[in-house]
Amino acid sequence: MSKDIRIGVLGASGYTGADLVRLALAHPSMQIATLTANSQAGKRMAEVFPQFGFVDLPDLITTEEADWSLVDAVFCGLPHGTTQEIARTVLADHPGIKFIDMSADFRLRDPEVYKTWYGHDHLAMDLQAEAVYGLTEHYRTAIRDARLVACPGCYPTATLLSLLPLVAAGLIDPSEIVVDAKSGVTGAGRSLKQNILFSEAGEGLSPYAVGKHRHAPEIEQEISKVAGTDVIVSFTPHLIPMSRGELCTSYLRMTGATVDDLRAAFVDAYRDEPFVHVAPEGVLPQTQNVRGSNYCQIGVVADRVPGRAIVISVIDNLVKGSAGQAVQNFNLMYDLDETTGLTQQALFP
Amino acid sequence: MSKDIRIGVLGASGYTGADLVRLALAHPSMQIATLTANSQAGKRMAEVFPQFGFVDLPDLITTEEADWSLVDAVFCGLPHGTTQEIARTVLADHPGIKFIDMSADFRLRDPEVYKTWYGHDHLAMDLQAEAVYGLTEHYRTAIRDARLVACPGCYPTATLLSLLPLVAAGLIDPSEIVVDAKSGVTGAGRSLKQNILFSEAGEGLSPYAVGKHRHAPEIEQEISKVAGTDVIVSFTPHLIPMSRGELCTSYLRMTGATVDDLRAAFVDAYRDEPFVHVAPEGVLPQTQNVRGSNYCQIGVVADRVPGRAIVISVIDNLVKGSAGQAVQNFNLMYDLDETTGLTQQALFP
Amino acid sequence: MSKDIRIGVLGASGYTGADLVRLALAHPSMQIATLTANSQAGKRMAEVFPQFGFVDLPDLITTEEADWSLVDAVFCGLPHGTTQEIARTVLADHPGIKFIDMSADFRLRDPEVYKTWYGHDHLAMDLQAEAVYGLTEHYRTAIRDARLVACPGCYPTATLLSLLPLVAAGLIDPSEIVVDAKSGVTGAGRSLKQNILFSEAGEGLSPYAVGKHRHAPEIEQEISKVAGTDVIVSFTPHLIPMSRGELCTSYLRMTGATVDDLRAAFVDAYRDEPFVHVAPEGVLPQTQNVRGSNYCQIGVVADRVPGRAIVISVIDNLVKGSAGQAVQNFNLMYDLDETTGLTQQALFP
Amino acid sequence: MSKDIRIGVLGASGYTGADLVRLALAHPSMQIATLTANSQAGKRMAEVFPQFGFVDLPDLITTEEADWSLVDAVFCGLPHGTTQEIARTVLADHPGIKFIDMSADFRLRDPEVYKTWYGHDHLAMDLQAEAVYGLTEHYRTAIRDARLVACPGCYPTATLLSLLPLVAAGLIDPSEIVVDAKSGVTGAGRSLKQNILFSEAGEGLSPYAVGKHRHAPEIEQEISKVAGTDVIVSFTPHLIPMSRGELCTSYLRMTGATVDDLRAAFVDAYRDEPFVHVAPEGVLPQTQNVRGSNYCQIGVVADRVPGRAIVISVIDNLVKGSAGQAVQNFNLMYDLDETTGLTQQALFP
Repeated sequence: MSKDIRIGVLGASGYTGADLVRLALAHPSMQIATLTANSQAGKRMAEVFPQFGFVDLPDLITTEEADWSLVDAVFCGLPHGTTQEIARTVLADHPGIKFIDMSADFRLRDPEVYKTWYGHDHLAMDLQAEAVYGLTEHYRTAIRDARLVACPGCYPTATLLSLLPLVAAGLIDPSEIVVDAKSGVTGAGRSLKQNILFSEAGEGLSPYAVGKHRHAPEIEQEISKVAGTDVIVSFTPHLIPMSRGELCTSYLRMTGATVDDLRAAFVDAYRDEPFVHVAPEGVLPQTQNVRGSNYCQIGVVADRVPGRAIVISVIDNLVKGSAGQAVQNFNLMYDLDETTGLTQQALFP
Repeated sequence: MSKDIRIGVLGASGYTGADLVRLALAHPSMQIATLTANSQAGKRMAEVFPQFGFVDLPDLITTEEADWSLVDAVFCGLPHGTTQEIARTVLADHPGIKFIDMSADFRLRDPEVYKTWYGHDHLAMDLQAEAVYGLTEHYRTAIRDARLVACPGCYPTATLLSLLPLVAAGLIDPSEIVVDAKSGVTGAGRSLKQNILFSEAGEGLSPYAVGKHRHAPEIEQEISKVAGTDVIVSFTPHLIPMSRGELCTSYLRMTGATVDDLRAAFVDAYRDEPFVHVAPEGVLPQTQNVRGSNYCQIGVVADRVPGRAIVISVIDNLVKGSAGQAVQNFNLMYDLDETTGLTQQALFP
Repeated sequence: MSKDIRIGVLGASGYTGADLVRLALAHPSMQIATLTANSQAGKRMAEVFPQFGFVDLPDLITTEEADWSLVDAVFCGLPHGTTQEIARTVLADHPGIKFIDMSADFRLRDPEVYKTWYGHDHLAMDLQAEAVYGLTEHYRTAIRDARLVACPGCYPTATLLSLLPLVAAGLIDPSEIVVDAKSGVTGAGRSLKQNILFSEAGEGLSPYAVGKHRHAPEIEQEISKVAGTDVIVSFTPHLIPMSRGELCTSYLRMTGATVDDLRAAFVDAYRDEPFVHVAPEGVLPQTQNVRGSNYCQIGVVADRVPGRAIVISVIDNLVKGSAGQAVQNFNLMYDLDETTGLTQQALFP
Repeated sequence: MSKDIRIGVLGASGYTGADLVRLALAHPSMQIATLTANSQAGKRMAEVFPQFGFVDLPDLITTEEADWSLVDAVFCGLPHGTTQEIARTVLADHPGIKFIDMSADFRLRDPEVYKTWYGHDHLAMDLQAEAVYGLTEHYRTAIRDARLVACPGCYPTATLLSLLPLVAAGLIDPSEIVVDAKSGVTGAGRSLKQNILFSEAGEGLSPYAVGKHRHAPEIEQEISKVAGTDVIVSFTPHLIPMSRGELCTSYLRMTGATVDDLRAAFVDAYRDEPFVHVAPEGVLPQTQNVRGSNYCQIGVVADRVPGRAIVISVIDNLVKGSAGQAVQNFNLMYDLDETTGLTQQALFP
């Protein structure tokens, strides 16, 4: 089997789209058939991302110009709000396509919650009903059979991987979760905003969207589901002067457990996982360890405050936090080895 | 009055010492009389810090070579553990000297706590007894009359300025304070360590000393004093890929108060303070705002979790977190306007 | 004399304007009377540059709203092409105003050259005729009496300070000058462009405008004048992942001289200059030495190629390369000590 | 064929060694049999480079502990000066081993030149005689049959790839070559030096080793060979605040040619090369395009000075400038497809 699954990338001019292309080029089964980017249509991909000047890629076209009959699987890296209608159209005309969404459009199952956080009615609730939440390690079985996978946001990926096993095992109090999250600047995308200019974001550090980041309801949806009760999480993101990488520091109250219990729960949950690793005692995760790779690393430390623990998780926001997890899900959906095309180690230094 | 107070800087080859020199050069009353740096003695300051190649400064000498009779005030930027004996010697021989310590040696009042965290007995408990904790805004009166001032650590400065008024007013539960702290790399000093090489610390983010940072007992000492009860604080620092700047995000449970109450308490506490500013509602502090300046900015945001608040404070770790606060205390000790030599605005971009 | 010269800043929402404001706040004679920024009019300065949230400043207004009768001196940080008409209007109505232009509009004396490089006819050639080129060290006498000063571009400042004394002394062949220039990202301004996003400019290095940068004709104008013959210079700029700082490496063929002769020529030319320093033999300038300061440092090294020398000069592009030099010229124009408000040392680390 | 060639890495605790390990893990034929690092012997690789915590690797041992009978090919990333004796010992005992040296020890063919630049006599001139200079594109045939390959330095790689075709075609004057080189901080290695601390190298830019960098004689050796005459090159390196990446800007005098002739010469020389790409007219190479990849990109621009051209080349200093080129040579030596294990695209952003 060689390069025989034809993929299309919607939104190939964004960072998520570009990282998907990077991974697809290294994937033995993916053939890049279509790249869309409405604002850049007509250009060569190398004009928009010069690092692709050394390989052959289709030119960028508009979504409307795409011939979906020539595509087996679609990866969607469009901004939220635009994917719902496109997915509906594409899947209506080509029901055999597998649609792997990296946008936020199908992550929230409750239409009211979606409307509250995204400001408009959901436009494809029928598709929402069949969408599978693409947190691979916790939805593997459903993803295998899904047609539409809603890959989690980067923060939910890092947070949920490091909290769900603890909540499931009843080791922490779900009503007292505080997550202090830090992300590199690619998390803000490639559109032009003053706060992500080099001279603004460099040599500095800013909290943002405090108390109101759109990834909070997504985190809460999944934790509540596992906890069996409605949970509100304290979640605060910060913008860090680096391009890639995300680190979530979670402050937790244990319910009679010890940090060794927590670590054991992680080891138990992720023993056979190729991409989720539990740091040995004494090792603190850092984003450098996962830069450019699909790994998530999780560490557990006892707080000085009795009964409290600190859990730290790191991912590359564009890989495990987006394009890499999308490829991991693709592998499941096509019954490939889950690590196919994703074995590249971190680029450090 | 012009350049008539002769100062000495102990440890002028470190970052704290260098920033003190930078500020002293701009200070109308300070004359730099002596610069010591035992490992670099004999060199010109410009060889050790080339940015001083444009001004006249004394050459570096050893502590032993210094003639303290020619010095009115000493700023000490030595590593912890070395200051106690030097301070004892200097002050025994020259009791009129004012000693402004930027090291950790006189911050902890309890010798047992000191020993626990720094690994050896305190060597100058008599001096410790007279040392005043140099958090200017909260110890102003005592600092005015002090001979020995122990300037707070950078993290305690940022944390305490943003917590003490709330604890004092009983607005938050002191037993549930979680501080997620982030610092630029200068916080780790200038000595050679692998983790602060450019290629190691750049483009990445690391927690460190989780559950065991030496600034925790200092924070707890001051909060406990104000709270009237022993408090343990959850305090976790992270290393951020920037040189200067520190941001503390504190997660707090309010005791029936609202975030407006919290903001009002800050405004009330800091109304007349020249260097502590409360961000208006909707404005989030960022380290860029204070880079190179002596300001501390504090913001308050309601958490989504009912009853919880998020407080954010920023300082430049080398200025308000060290050399700047030392100069501010010097001004008090010499009955100068407290802002003398410290009015420079942030260097942004 | 205290804060008695009222200044206006045109274009206060750009980096050059902001750095002028920073310097003006520290200047004992300047009173900031007016800040204009047409695209941001109506906002407080602190909304546009949050680092100014701790001081009182006039709100931003449009150029048209400004009452120039309340202003003694104008600093103009507008983009090129817009200054000419504004200067004409302001100076026609208020002939007593001193106009210190930090834009490119009055730097080129030849209208044909201006048109070639900026794409339109010069709109105020009468003013151009009276404009003095604001390279302080080489036009000091004329600046003192000028009403309109055209401050040089950042690259011309760094380049000319390090070449003019050599050309004047006949020590190098002016027909074989190669300047490899490197600038921090603030040099590209604050307007939104994709190549200056953090994730694009960070961790990388790009040449730009190779063979066609608009600072080349300005450099050539001044070198030609001193050389007494038309000179074309090879000038190539590069974008460096730092915010501030500029370094020009000039590759020169000596005309029988030695590098010691070159260094002596610099020492001779700049012996009494407060802001231009010649590095001692063996010391290489680096931008860190001048960050945030008005200094220019120049170093000379023998090339291995016989008869060739390498000259290196560094400035902070926003200070000596723009706002600082403007203040230096202001001081001259008002017969103040030339260093007034500019004595701050570099912010390092 | 799968993981059947056993490799050893000498100096696995340095950046070059680590990048070799990263590439070897992705190489279908390489089995990592031995990792040495005398100063870190006894540790797990993950303790020294935590990014390798997710894969199985041999523990670090000393060179002396290594059993070379279990190794087919050796990659050597030791500091210069130590490789010569180790190579002699290893190859004497195990003459079948293929030795791919990434150090500087076998690059210079003239023992006098070696002694002049490295300060001691060459210790293995017999091996030097059989060593092949590993600039793949220009020594391919010899490399295929070599037992000992001396991979070029990073600067020589970027410089020579962008100059040799022009010299060979007689299009430029080899006596007037000026190379302004810029490198990321990994080029300085991982040993602890003050100038490469984050807070020293960040937000700044420094020239270094001006007129005396050890890569100059290597560049000259190869250019002289092609030119048929002794050439001295003006070569000046600069340290850039980024981890990876290298850009060389070469200023050239053409001998009657045009830049189109130059570009044509490059296209002609590199038409079939998988890793050397000539930028189309109007495209300027930037290091971001090749980060983490084995590509070299070359661009040509006409200078404004008549008869002069500017050539720009970029590589990742650790990949094409070191470990990547070493793997490329390994592939040749084992008759594998030259791109095996090296097809990964740049990590951007």
